[in-house]
Amino acid sequence: MRIGVLTSGGDCPGLNAVIRSVVHRGVVDHGDEIIGFEDGWRGLLEGVHRPLTLDSVSGILAQGGTILGSSRVQPSHLRDGVERAKQHCADLGIDAVIPIGGEGTLKAAKLMSDAGLPVVGVPKTIDNDIACTDVTFGFDTAVSVATEALDRLKTTAESHQRVMVVEVMGRHTGWIALNAGMAAGAHAIIVPERPFHIDKLTEVVRERFDRQKKFAIVVCAEGAKPEPGTMPWEEGTKDMYGHERFTGIATQLSRELEHRLGKEARPVILGHTQRGGTPTAYDRVLATRFGWHAVEAAHKGAFGHITALQGTEIKLVPLGEAVAELKTVPAERYREAETVI
Amino acid sequence: MRIGVLTSGGDCPGLNAVIRSVVHRGVVDHGDEIIGFEDGWRGLLEGVHRPLTLDSVSGILAQGGTILGSSRVQPSHLRDGVERAKQHCADLGIDAVIPIGGEGTLKAAKLMSDAGLPVVGVPKTIDNDIACTDVTFGFDTAVSVATEALDRLKTTAESHQRVMVVEVMGRHTGWIALNAGMAAGAHAIIVPERPFHIDKLTEVVRERFDRQKKFAIVVCAEGAKPEPGTMPWEEGTKDMYGHERFTGIATQLSRELEHRLGKEARPVILGHTQRGGTPTAYDRVLATRFGWHAVEAAHKGAFGHITALQGTEIKLVPLGEAVAELKTVPAERYREAETVI
Amino acid sequence: MRIGVLTSGGDCPGLNAVIRSVVHRGVVDHGDEIIGFEDGWRGLLEGVHRPLTLDSVSGILAQGGTILGSSRVQPSHLRDGVERAKQHCADLGIDAVIPIGGEGTLKAAKLMSDAGLPVVGVPKTIDNDIACTDVTFGFDTAVSVATEALDRLKTTAESHQRVMVVEVMGRHTGWIALNAGMAAGAHAIIVPERPFHIDKLTEVVRERFDRQKKFAIVVCAEGAKPEPGTMPWEEGTKDMYGHERFTGIATQLSRELEHRLGKEARPVILGHTQRGGTPTAYDRVLATRFGWHAVEAAHKGAFGHITALQGTEIKLVPLGEAVAELKTVPAERYREAETVI
Amino acid sequence: MRIGVLTSGGDCPGLNAVIRSVVHRGVVDHGDEIIGFEDGWRGLLEGVHRPLTLDSVSGILAQGGTILGSSRVQPSHLRDGVERAKQHCADLGIDAVIPIGGEGTLKAAKLMSDAGLPVVGVPKTIDNDIACTDVTFGFDTAVSVATEALDRLKTTAESHQRVMVVEVMGRHTGWIALNAGMAAGAHAIIVPERPFHIDKLTEVVRERFDRQKKFAIVVCAEGAKPEPGTMPWEEGTKDMYGHERFTGIATQLSRELEHRLGKEARPVILGHTQRGGTPTAYDRVLATRFGWHAVEAAHKGAFGHITALQGTEIKLVPLGEAVAELKTVPAERYREAETVI
Repeated sequence: MRIGVLTSGGDCPGLNAVIRSVVHRGVVDHGDEIIGFEDGWRGLLEGVHRPLTLDSVSGILAQGGTILGSSRVQPSHLRDGVERAKQHCADLGIDAVIPIGGEGTLKAAKLMSDAGLPVVGVPKTIDNDIACTDVTFGFDTAVSVATEALDRLKTTAESHQRVMVVEVMGRHTGWIALNAGMAAGAHAIIVPERPFHIDKLTEVVRERFDRQKKFAIVVCAEGAKPEPGTMPWEEGTKDMYGHERFTGIATQLSRELEHRLGKEARPVILGHTQRGGTPTAYDRVLATRFGWHAVEAAHKGAFGHITALQGTEIKLVPLGEAVAELKTVPAERYREAETVI
Repeated sequence: MRIGVLTSGGDCPGLNAVIRSVVHRGVVDHGDEIIGFEDGWRGLLEGVHRPLTLDSVSGILAQGGTILGSSRVQPSHLRDGVERAKQHCADLGIDAVIPIGGEGTLKAAKLMSDAGLPVVGVPKTIDNDIACTDVTFGFDTAVSVATEALDRLKTTAESHQRVMVVEVMGRHTGWIALNAGMAAGAHAIIVPERPFHIDKLTEVVRERFDRQKKFAIVVCAEGAKPEPGTMPWEEGTKDMYGHERFTGIATQLSRELEHRLGKEARPVILGHTQRGGTPTAYDRVLATRFGWHAVEAAHKGAFGHITALQGTEIKLVPLGEAVAELKTVPAERYREAETVI
Repeated sequence: MRIGVLTSGGDCPGLNAVIRSVVHRGVVDHGDEIIGFEDGWRGLLEGVHRPLTLDSVSGILAQGGTILGSSRVQPSHLRDGVERAKQHCADLGIDAVIPIGGEGTLKAAKLMSDAGLPVVGVPKTIDNDIACTDVTFGFDTAVSVATEALDRLKTTAESHQRVMVVEVMGRHTGWIALNAGMAAGAHAIIVPERPFHIDKLTEVVRERFDRQKKFAIVVCAEGAKPEPGTMPWEEGTKDMYGHERFTGIATQLSRELEHRLGKEARPVILGHTQRGGTPTAYDRVLATRFGWHAVEAAHKGAFGHITALQGTEIKLVPLGEAVAELKTVPAERYREAETVI
Repeated sequence: MRIGVLTSGGDCPGLNAVIRSVVHRGVVDHGDEIIGFEDGWRGLLEGVHRPLTLDSVSGILAQGGTILGSSRVQPSHLRDGVERAKQHCADLGIDAVIPIGGEGTLKAAKLMSDAGLPVVGVPKTIDNDIACTDVTFGFDTAVSVATEALDRLKTTAESHQRVMVVEVMGRHTGWIALNAGMAAGAHAIIVPERPFHIDKLTEVVRERFDRQKKFAIVVCAEGAKPEPGTMPWEEGTKDMYGHERFTGIATQLSRELEHRLGKEARPVILGHTQRGGTPTAYDRVLATRFGWHAVEAAHKGAFGHITALQGTEIKLVPLGEAVAELKTVPAERYREAETVI
């Protein structure tokens, strides 16, 4: 077969491991030819590509980023480009396309698939918010990076007798906050799925200081929000470039906690370090397995599916199911964590 | 309730996280009293214990080892001790015992449970060989440590144009070898479940050098064995202390490969570094969840079970099922790894 | 002897290693009694202290933070407290005081020393800005943490074709920026010692994109400033709590670079993760040696000095020299780094 | 200028950082042409080389190993090859040769230099045993890797109530043992410079158990030896391939300690993981500075020297001085470590 592969959306540790796995399994097991489209969907729409051989993927397993580049393309641009994509594939003799990406990418993959392109998707997101798969690669690395940072911040918080409010990634879901918070023993965890009440959070922290503890760590997902009307909230103002000034959740929360508790509080925004760099062993294994199964699916003609981890096995799930809804943190998991406010 | 907890068997990252979780959930959510038995079953048999409070478990979440100590006790000694254990529990007013341990510990737990002790087991093994649970805590840390070591060894193998034969833990199963080998891109993986043929292994490595590659990495589980009669095998001889001299699989394999290939080959035995130290974020979360669910099970009276991860949820599985058979690497996983010889 | 020890100022990896070393050397080699003052100078001024035994320092070598706590005390408060400090020491029979701290602490130490207190200081700062010592413990850890973050950020910058402007610690000196920038291969480094010209920086980055490079990493110390009048600079405005809104160098620089280059640019502020957590092996060794030599100095009566690394040896330097001036990055080091703008 | 560069001897983290630095400084600052000889001296003797451009060294700063390959060449072979080396250099128009290597390499460099080749050496050894330089790159990485392993082993030793005897690299000098042992808080350190007495070592460990401590860590350099006649010592016997069976210091010591103390003791041999993989930030900075100064030295015509770190500065030291004697651990450092037996 001739298989095209592309990576789309934000950076995510494990992308190169998938690419490598697709090339290894395709070339070695099936004698396939693998073609890489450059810079995500753009490469498919504009026909920019290059051959991927065993040599091209040598040494990339543990590398962060993607050797194929990525980009974000407007959905409208994608809709208009379906016919061009099909034409490029026909011209190149492509028998299967493996897009690796997050929710947006998989929606685009569904669009392409519905239009007749032979697609097998590989889900990717550090946020772990794709339904149908127990977990996505990149998530374990993000949680590990956040946990290491939290481990470090604890000693400083304790030495300085402070509240640290640490913002981790997660615009719509709190998976990273939940797992990093649990792993690091955070004293409160705030997630987007459940608007928090500032009074309750203040009580949790105050009660801790009352027990003679010298510090507190609050982990919040970047998309977390207070219950409307329960705490002052400063809308972003524009700076001289027209950008909104940063007034994120961690900053506002730390100011308010400092004000209420009379204890020093500091915001820390972990930011992009969570989404780049070498993947953990866990993510490399998962990404490699996804790549292997995507190639197998292509050879079985199981198009219109994505690979998904269910228990210990990789299954194929229809694209439609995969993008139907966001996987949010269920209430049961809050109870286990106990510290989700 | 009054809950006793003990850790038994070999060291495993995450033991302290379970202990801490049991104490937190018991004390905070249920007002339980938690008692720790010292040095595993020995503490229960001899009635050596101490109270575990929130303060006793402060700061141990990320610490390797076990604050309760561990020991290995003879099965016969355990059988003889059942009545004494029951008596100690009665004297102490213990309503539930939570033993945390591997296969041997869970067999002992079944023995105690069958004799009427109210037991909820928590499975623990870096080897990942316990049936009924997708994974055990400690395994991810072991794989991570082995993968980091393999990452480092690759550059030396390449600079020196060598074969490196790296022995990882796994006496009966090849899970660590499989996952670390996949994560690090090993060129051959040898597991106990499948005796290897030295001719085939030699061919795989030779073929690699024929493709102008400068090095090769072979990962073998400590319990891996050649097909009988296919390669010279030196039985251990005794040293002056009566100990067997070390002639493990990696050493013998590297000698034979060097002999056959005419290339430098070196054994590296990773050893105990795989089973100690701070747990990964993944293992801390899993261990914490196990602890939480063990306490819940005790409060529901669901004795005679162990906690188990199935998909994304923690389930309770009868002790009998858990120890019925070892979880070995299934053939399907060999195919994904491709490099399992 | 009876030796008092205290830690003062910001958190710094290695503080516990010094404390442990002082106790080990004092107790084991000299039969000293060691007393720890709580929360820095405050403990000395208010006479809050506790005995430090071999058991009290067991297991703290690799721990971040300080078991003695820290605080920041106003200089005026210190000046007023000299007599009280002397009285407390007399009452306790203290023969030597070992304060571990940064520039402010060492100035306070000099004040106390001039007033007759028998003081041996141990320099501490992640910023590496203390004269007379080649390096201070904590610095290597800070550089390591920043370098790991930069390694991770590079793959994201490359995948997204962005400029990343990464702010590291260093209010007055650029040592962390210099070393982390060199270690991670940053494309431009901005330090407080040398106001940068935005035109030159823009040129360096633009020239890189002209060579078809897909991304650029700019490392800036938090205290770095543009040459006055060369780029727009927005003074901080107050938020509703009276705090200044954060408009640090990385944020302003990334906005301006994005505006000038027409490329996406993103600020990342590494923050407190650089100053906490487990120290590197390098810092543990240096901290341990400082502790050993501080005790030796006390026994030799060499008061009024600090320990200092010079080459491979630990020397004693008069307190007055140590605090005379800040150690800034010399011009020669810019030339080596080449990328200091 | 036209500058040739080569890497020789064992793998060492930072080699690629030196190569990259030489290319960057040569090409960017001076408009030099840089040529890489393949596989160490062999490339120079046999004239195997390739051009090194900015693109060839892109992304190698943090990579272990050496993109130029390495090899070990017999001294006699080198002596016979001097004229050929000079001829190759003349043919290629080489104005300076920068060999990067350890003691053997620098001796070869002196030979070449004495014969008229324009040589600037860069010292490299994870063992830190080269005189005239405070430290060599690779050493900090080796110590870090060993320290991390020791940190992990401690929890296992404690859980199992064992003595762990950990063998680190260092055939002739004990620098890695000393620093890793200090950094990890080992209870005894054994170095080649000072033959140990088994009675004294046993006493140190026994005294620790007498104080109710549950474990002990002994760190030994691979080249450490007992005082002759003080403990049984088993000479290696040959295996079926004619290789000596491994009966290293850690194995023999752990057997003897177990025999004497009646406590479980286990050997752990850290091996090659100490010499490969990504360099620490410290080593990357040092390697980069060495590269920069080697190019400067070449342009100044300061041949016959090596780069050396002295305090915070890079100096040039005559090759003769550099290879005159091995830098061993001085007695003063034993005293600081206290635990050197």
